Amino acid sequence: MANNSNKVSVIAGGAGFIGVNLAKSLKDSGRNIVIGDNLSLGSLDNIQKYISPEFEDFYEVDLSTAIGVKHLFESCIVRFGRIDEVWHLAANSDIPAGVNNPNVDHKDTFLTTFELLQGCNEYGIKKFNFASSSAVYGDWGIHPLSENLGPLKPISNYGAMKLASEAQICAAKESFLESVCIYRFPNVVGAPATHGVILDFIRKLIQNPNQLEVLGNGSQKKSYLHVSELVDAMIYVSDLPVSSSTAEIVNIGCDDEGILVRDIAEIVVNLLSPEAKIIFGEGDKGWVGDVPKFTYDVSRLKSLGWVPKNNSHQAVNLAAQEVISNFGD
Amino acid sequence: MANNSNKVSVIAGGAGFIGVNLAKSLKDSGRNIVIGDNLSLGSLDNIQKYISPEFEDFYEVDLSTAIGVKHLFESCIVRFGRIDEVWHLAANSDIPAGVNNPNVDHKDTFLTTFELLQGCNEYGIKKFNFASSSAVYGDWGIHPLSENLGPLKPISNYGAMKLASEAQICAAKESFLESVCIYRFPNVVGAPATHGVILDFIRKLIQNPNQLEVLGNGSQKKSYLHVSELVDAMIYVSDLPVSSSTAEIVNIGCDDEGILVRDIAEIVVNLLSPEAKIIFGEGDKGWVGDVPKFTYDVSRLKSLGWVPKNNSHQAVNLAAQEVISNFGD
Repeated sequence: MANNSNKVSVIAGGAGFIGVNLAKSLKDSGRNIVIGDNLSLGSLDNIQKYISPEFEDFYEVDLSTAIGVKHLFESCIVRFGRIDEVWHLAANSDIPAGVNNPNVDHKDTFLTTFELLQGCNEYGIKKFNFASSSAVYGDWGIHPLSENLGPLKPISNYGAMKLASEAQICAAKESFLESVCIYRFPNVVGAPATHGVILDFIRKLIQNPNQLEVLGNGSQKKSYLHVSELVDAMIYVSDLPVSSSTAEIVNIGCDDEGILVRDIAEIVVNLLSPEAKIIFGEGDKGWVGDVPKFTYDVSRLKSLGWVPKNNSHQAVNLAAQEVISNFGD
Repeated sequence: MANNSNKVSVIAGGAGFIGVNLAKSLKDSGRNIVIGDNLSLGSLDNIQKYISPEFEDFYEVDLSTAIGVKHLFESCIVRFGRIDEVWHLAANSDIPAGVNNPNVDHKDTFLTTFELLQGCNEYGIKKFNFASSSAVYGDWGIHPLSENLGPLKPISNYGAMKLASEAQICAAKESFLESVCIYRFPNVVGAPATHGVILDFIRKLIQNPNQLEVLGNGSQKKSYLHVSELVDAMIYVSDLPVSSSTAEIVNIGCDDEGILVRDIAEIVVNLLSPEAKIIFGEGDKGWVGDVPKFTYDVSRLKSLGWVPKNNSHQAVNLAAQEVISNFGD
């Protein structure tokens, strides 16, 4: 593993679900970390619980503004003398919210990238890590999603603004950045998730332990990765000695064909309320912008030397247990 | 050809180089047209010269704002009762300007798309035609650029914001648009161009008829299409009876391997100042964000039934004559 004992890392969106898990792992890798978050989806509770109760290097900032980025970057420089890298996870991760109001994804997903990149240019920061998404691909049915697919036709504003962010980062790499890692996430599960099918099912079952209503007919099939594996893969790729061009855009995910929504429903019901009846809706989409099925090609990631340990079923099972045990905290 | 005698078309960026050529052809096809442009690169002179001296349905508006789009759309509805389609060509087309200041491409290329789409949603407009660019591909060397290439890594903010616009349009297609045509342009030549290598060479030769200094070593090789062929292809694709998914994103270009910058220099020198000496610079890029070589795969366009008539050499030659004859107007 690379020696990161002196590295200074800024984590944008570091109080959110994936952010706190990543921040903890970056800290454990020996990095000095500073977190900025607008706390719209993230929280101080997350930071205290998942990083450390004494963690002080957090700033509540709106990173979709130049002044917010400036405040975060200058605070980091005052504290640690410099910034070696940015990890950008700030985004609206609530897909239906962005379909209803495109301004949400524009501000929280697109403009955060725009302003963070401008900040990197201004402060001479050369390395940029970005949390992109499988949503950039759009709906390819059962065709495995690999990085060399085209054309990309995202079907949600969330996916559109993630792709738009990737595009800006690539242009910045040509101009002033030296190293770029763009990670395309699948569905990520674990704690402290703020949305998603597992949390949805748990909430419904707590409200009514006798039955679970599922949006759509349950035939949606997707690949799920546990957040612990995700952040492990991200740091692994970022720490590769030379960031080759194949490492610039890389899918991170399980090496399987995914799990059916109806199987997720059964996992949650078995853990929480084994007698509950599962009731399915109609159609194969949960909402506008939902991609009903996809399988994820992670051969590029494996060729870089990282292999997932859990399959989608194991990841969902582990995550469901964690979310249930956290519930009501 | 489709019957367009009653169609009402709004052309965003319709006072610019490609805009006025497209507007004229759309008018000739029987459409009622209304033009909006901020006149930063376009001009009223263009409209009067290339469309008609009496043309009245022009509005000077900033289409990167909701109020600008609202003014344009409501003016069109007052005049013609409705809007059937939008043709979106508004953009900053000056690549080096956008590399120097990302706000330019963000405002004039990205936000115009964002606001026009919001306007389409609000006013119930179902068809959207978009002028995208070969710049979305990034630098693939001599690998032919086809629509199914990935990953897309644009190397200029111009290319990034065009790709970002494509992404938004695809998401809007899933949500509220019914039909989408995204045309990826190569280098387009003709009159009244406001920038580009031909105009550059002509300006330099007029200033100093004895020599022509070329940025880079002249080995940049690119495909060029004459604007008359471009707008012909755009309208052809848009008028296809059913907008199939293969017509949603389509390269428009010549069916050749392109022309060397040094050959363009010779064409211009021969037309304007045959005794001038051509002096080459170093390196194979003209500027940051320049893609030194590309060849364009137009097999999808041909499979849709449209075939280019001129090759890149013929297109450049014709355009150089037109630009020279317009010079000093």
